[in-house]
Amino acid sequence: MADADRHPPEALLASFAAELRPEDIPERVRHQARRSLVNVFATALAGSREAAVDIVVASMAPCTGPRTATLIGRSEGGDAGLAAFVNAMGANIFDFDDTHQATVLHPAAPVFAALFAQAEAARVSGADLLRAFVIGGEVECRIGNAMSPYHYARGWHITSTCGVFGAAAGVGALLGLDAGRMLHALGTAAVQSSGLVEALGTMAKSVSVGGAARNGLLSARLAANAFTGPPAPLSGRYGYLRVHADPPRLEALTEGLGAQWEIATNTYKPYPGGIVLHALIDAFLELREQHGLRLEDVAAIEVTGHPLLRERTDRPDVTTGREGQVSAQHAIAILLLRGRAGLDEFTDEAVAETRRAGRPQIVFNDDPTRRIESAEVMVRTRAGGTLRKSVAAAIGSERNPLSDAQLETKLVELARRVGFAGDAPRLAETIWRIDELADAGDVIRLAASPA
Amino acid sequence: MADADRHPPEALLASFAAELRPEDIPERVRHQARRSLVNVFATALAGSREAAVDIVVASMAPCTGPRTATLIGRSEGGDAGLAAFVNAMGANIFDFDDTHQATVLHPAAPVFAALFAQAEAARVSGADLLRAFVIGGEVECRIGNAMSPYHYARGWHITSTCGVFGAAAGVGALLGLDAGRMLHALGTAAVQSSGLVEALGTMAKSVSVGGAARNGLLSARLAANAFTGPPAPLSGRYGYLRVHADPPRLEALTEGLGAQWEIATNTYKPYPGGIVLHALIDAFLELREQHGLRLEDVAAIEVTGHPLLRERTDRPDVTTGREGQVSAQHAIAILLLRGRAGLDEFTDEAVAETRRAGRPQIVFNDDPTRRIESAEVMVRTRAGGTLRKSVAAAIGSERNPLSDAQLETKLVELARRVGFAGDAPRLAETIWRIDELADAGDVIRLAASPA
Repeated sequence: MADADRHPPEALLASFAAELRPEDIPERVRHQARRSLVNVFATALAGSREAAVDIVVASMAPCTGPRTATLIGRSEGGDAGLAAFVNAMGANIFDFDDTHQATVLHPAAPVFAALFAQAEAARVSGADLLRAFVIGGEVECRIGNAMSPYHYARGWHITSTCGVFGAAAGVGALLGLDAGRMLHALGTAAVQSSGLVEALGTMAKSVSVGGAARNGLLSARLAANAFTGPPAPLSGRYGYLRVHADPPRLEALTEGLGAQWEIATNTYKPYPGGIVLHALIDAFLELREQHGLRLEDVAAIEVTGHPLLRERTDRPDVTTGREGQVSAQHAIAILLLRGRAGLDEFTDEAVAETRRAGRPQIVFNDDPTRRIESAEVMVRTRAGGTLRKSVAAAIGSERNPLSDAQLETKLVELARRVGFAGDAPRLAETIWRIDELADAGDVIRLAASPA
Repeated sequence: MADADRHPPEALLASFAAELRPEDIPERVRHQARRSLVNVFATALAGSREAAVDIVVASMAPCTGPRTATLIGRSEGGDAGLAAFVNAMGANIFDFDDTHQATVLHPAAPVFAALFAQAEAARVSGADLLRAFVIGGEVECRIGNAMSPYHYARGWHITSTCGVFGAAAGVGALLGLDAGRMLHALGTAAVQSSGLVEALGTMAKSVSVGGAARNGLLSARLAANAFTGPPAPLSGRYGYLRVHADPPRLEALTEGLGAQWEIATNTYKPYPGGIVLHALIDAFLELREQHGLRLEDVAAIEVTGHPLLRERTDRPDVTTGREGQVSAQHAIAILLLRGRAGLDEFTDEAVAETRRAGRPQIVFNDDPTRRIESAEVMVRTRAGGTLRKSVAAAIGSERNPLSDAQLETKLVELARRVGFAGDAPRLAETIWRIDELADAGDVIRLAASPA
């Protein structure tokens, strides 16, 4: 008891974050971290020219210090705070970034954005940045684990609320905070954690994601200058976890720490739609390719999947691109029309197109014994035939992950989509060999768009 | 029902904030707003040289844009975001600022700091600033009312969590946002609301207060540039109030709007200690003055008060100044020793002094029928006598408010305590006639400390 009082679980987590040595991280975990970076640079480029980002850059300009940092996919630069904010919000804006399965949080965006902003302000090696990225992801996902499923179900936008801790711990690692200061960085992050599910699909969502990166960076910098917080900011009587979960699972902060790696359970999306839709998308893309199925051929569709498939995606009447991302009827219609399911297939225009063309009727059969990444599909065609397709594990799921080459293609294609004027293949190649870089900032500078 | 769908209560609150005319605000309310400003400038000066503020100014310097704004009590300036942050944190750092009785939130700090930062960036009249200050206070206190008592009891630092809405609405009013954009400003504020009771008494507490001001300012500026949020950010299914209260009282957002004014119920503290202690402090200051009572004369003390007096302040063994602010034993000991109960009486040194001198033993009698601002005291002296004192309404309570002159003295004395090099009486005098100023920034520029 006395020991637990002196060492609350967040103090152990802070020690881990402060003291983890590079050689303590297995190579398979390091490689997952590189994969996560390729993916998040891909989605950050994809989101870099969105209107919400433009407004933030313009609105924050008067409160931006001297340019030290890169805004991904843009020609403007910014100070570290602005870069952390903007790069995180862009990376998550389409929810096309990585997914931590146990919590549905998107871990990379707030952490990588804060880390590179710090790395451009004060040079660090690529290996140090990779270590900090692993640490940040570990801290935020463990805090997410300790609050799940209550926290997200209650209405908190878990990517934002946990992201600030990941950014604080990651930047704290870059700054070489000792365990005591790392705990204070987490304490200062705790009072800045925010974000609401209600804002999903609106510009406002991105403000909590951007804020997570910027405020996490600030938390670490304050701690480096001897700023202090409470001794048990997460597990104390009014600590973060007690306020934001009911009940919190405190042991999730430390169980298997240094042996089980949360980043190893990350998945990367091949399609920007909701992850529950991915098996369905795989199935219909195959039916189109192998059997020449087109929208006008479809008479009736029956799908069998986990109940969440029906609950989250049985939306025949959507009108916006954002809604289209979680509509089975729209997704099937657009991919049968176009043979693709990329960002262009989930715009307002694409949704208007399937509204005009007519979306298929779908009968959903719930099967709670199924895994979320699986689905079975039966199509009756107007010609009177029946097509069946079964997907055991959707592409991009933990059991059927995107290959390194597919991640690289994702980056190159998303860069092309926004007219990125830089060298996307070189950016990917540089990330793969980040451990060799004397200056981690070399990576993000390749992601700037020349004026 | 359809009407409520189209007009959620926060939309009505946003309309109020956007459309309130200066002539709709009664003069007694305007005067309360001026009193609140005198008080908050007093506490902002008091907090302006604290170590936490020094660290924030130093840590945020690399992310600060061109100097447009005043940091109260300091010679450095900053951009609007830094000034909003620093001035709010300083004003609240001792919890010596105003108190909204129904929620125990301190409304002025986040709002005034954001407003003056904006006013220095783009000139507005003193009358416009006063109107915006009333609007900001109204919005944040009503959101606080809608969540009380659950929200604070659960562990949210209500000054911070509600402050961001007040700052957003107030700055939104200065920027002339229409009702639609005002609602989006509130939506963007909602995703940035944070702060924990666990951090009270530590530096970290001030980061959520400062953040409330800075993030509220950002929310309004984003909305002015057409940034959007969800249609019902507070009352929606996963809206702010449903996540942060259980259950929320939605009608509190709008009941009596424009007729009942929350700012009219604000109180201002004569002593920096917890407000539940104030009646006790009054009683013992009078006993000392009228009967010459000294600490060494005291044999035994019996006090009768609301149960919260005992629950919150029966702390005989405190060791820090912050703990001393909520210790009846320390407060009585130090004021009998010194004849005062100002900031200097609640420092670590003062607490060490009463520890050495010996604190009195106190028997607490609970009387739930009593008002919180009342207390009855009985002292047995070593000489064998008995002294009694009854306080019906402590100085500074709603029924016995500080006079305008006392507020002005508070400002002058707190300015003197930090060695303020400016002209404190002139600052107070300028606030009283703020309605006449063509440039509201004239007020805060008087609060800068010449280098």
